[in-house]
Amino acid sequence: MEAPYPTTPISPSTTRIGWIGIGLMGSPMASRLLAAGYFLTVFARNPSKALHLQSQGAFLATSPQHLAQSCDVVFTIIGGPPDVRSVVIGPTGVLSGLNPGGVTVDMTTSSPSLAREISNAAGGKLCWAVDAPVSGADAGAREGKLAIMAGGDSRIVEWLLPLFEVMGKCTYVGGAGCGQSCKIGNQIVGSANLVGLSEALTFAGRAGLDLGKVLAGLKGGPAVNKIMELFGEKMIERDFRPGGFAEYLVKDFGIGLNFVEEDEGEVVALPGAALCKQLFIGMIANGDAKLGLQGVITVIERLNGIN
Amino acid sequence: MEAPYPTTPISPSTTRIGWIGIGLMGSPMASRLLAAGYFLTVFARNPSKALHLQSQGAFLATSPQHLAQSCDVVFTIIGGPPDVRSVVIGPTGVLSGLNPGGVTVDMTTSSPSLAREISNAAGGKLCWAVDAPVSGADAGAREGKLAIMAGGDSRIVEWLLPLFEVMGKCTYVGGAGCGQSCKIGNQIVGSANLVGLSEALTFAGRAGLDLGKVLAGLKGGPAVNKIMELFGEKMIERDFRPGGFAEYLVKDFGIGLNFVEEDEGEVVALPGAALCKQLFIGMIANGDAKLGLQGVITVIERLNGIN
Repeated sequence: MEAPYPTTPISPSTTRIGWIGIGLMGSPMASRLLAAGYFLTVFARNPSKALHLQSQGAFLATSPQHLAQSCDVVFTIIGGPPDVRSVVIGPTGVLSGLNPGGVTVDMTTSSPSLAREISNAAGGKLCWAVDAPVSGADAGAREGKLAIMAGGDSRIVEWLLPLFEVMGKCTYVGGAGCGQSCKIGNQIVGSANLVGLSEALTFAGRAGLDLGKVLAGLKGGPAVNKIMELFGEKMIERDFRPGGFAEYLVKDFGIGLNFVEEDEGEVVALPGAALCKQLFIGMIANGDAKLGLQGVITVIERLNGIN
Repeated sequence: MEAPYPTTPISPSTTRIGWIGIGLMGSPMASRLLAAGYFLTVFARNPSKALHLQSQGAFLATSPQHLAQSCDVVFTIIGGPPDVRSVVIGPTGVLSGLNPGGVTVDMTTSSPSLAREISNAAGGKLCWAVDAPVSGADAGAREGKLAIMAGGDSRIVEWLLPLFEVMGKCTYVGGAGCGQSCKIGNQIVGSANLVGLSEALTFAGRAGLDLGKVLAGLKGGPAVNKIMELFGEKMIERDFRPGGFAEYLVKDFGIGLNFVEEDEGEVVALPGAALCKQLFIGMIANGDAKLGLQGVITVIERLNGIN
């Protein structure tokens, strides 16, 4: 027996939404859904942290199960795979409460294999699961400009689009787990962009160039990238305030990618990604775990006796 | 005594232009200047290769010196530093023929220190030198969409703009040698983008994803870059035809950047750039020196027993 497809399109007046995870990312995302007129029920381990959402009209549930019982769609965006496992498929988790036809959407950056496990568990309950991790940092979450990479049943992802559009732009990338795999790909490319830019600016600095002019020169050529636009000036101005923490990127690299030290995920040799991971680990080693990703330039500088 | 600044603005009717270097890049660039109405004198070691430019109205000179004697501006875009040294400051080179106030513009990807040496030599002849390497491959050269990174006297670079605008978009990046240094930065970032994309696609392929969808997902997020737009589909479709040869990128990494094996240039440790260089050397080792830069994905694949 297959889970039934939803028969009613998403709308603020009829779709009941659950939200679990009100951190740096989840809080502004939930807030945007409330502002768009949706009824939202929130579960928070520490309810005092949900006060601002309550003041926007959010209801409070006492457990993921309690929340899911009254919701058509439940979003999660929480720490990492162990939290996701417990909150979604644990004894009092989302799937223990969701009605047949309900949808659980995990927006945490988590592992592809866990996403597939959740999808199977959801199917067993005649429910649906979508993995939809995001990229774009807290600013993207506040402004509704997140990149959402969604894996799961294509009709369900399409049905969810009105909600995703409140948060950003969704790209459907394939079946269960594919959203998470695409997010790993995004981190591989993004970190390469960050390290490449850090090295180019460090080189240019040592060569005595005006870094603002160099950045303009790079932006004019085929090496231009969005990371350069987002972080180039910040690197030059030594503004290392975090959009996302460096330590999170290191965590992301431990998910679904089997470098020597991990025992889960695809076995694939990626020397560039492995080096990038080491350089971001350098930030943690330097006590800079809570700086933004652009702070990786300081690791390249330290290598060269700068600062 | 300082070189005199030009008193007449650039114009097709009055500015006499010399062109040396009619390879993959130089030939379409010279052709665009002819099409824009400029009188062009060409020097080519093998005059038969200049026939198509002669049919567009180009004159032929017998040596760089002979060419420079009748020109206000001489452009060079030739193999590498040794060629540039010989053609610009050699016994019968450009500077031996150029009149005071003349400008020699090297668009070869060459070394910053040679650019400074040429600038000094030009000053000694009361002439000007600009280093203005380009990025954008042969398509950019044909379409007049090159990124030009210019170093030298800012007034001279500004004076040259009407000519640069026929070829692409010029960014002034600083004094003599700065154009070359910026180009090295461009190669550092661009190669990181290429390797990052290669690794993300190799990972996603192993994870069983549809690579077209992954590319769409990546393009929607903050990891998006121009390299992805230029080369992403080609990597997926196994179209490794060259815009620029892989071996040229390896050569560029040997200029001005002191990795262990080079004895010239800035001493600066750039682990990412060093790794990228090694991976592009892998292409040469695999017999793929004349493939395009996007072929670096095959090196990542070979590492993983793919293809």
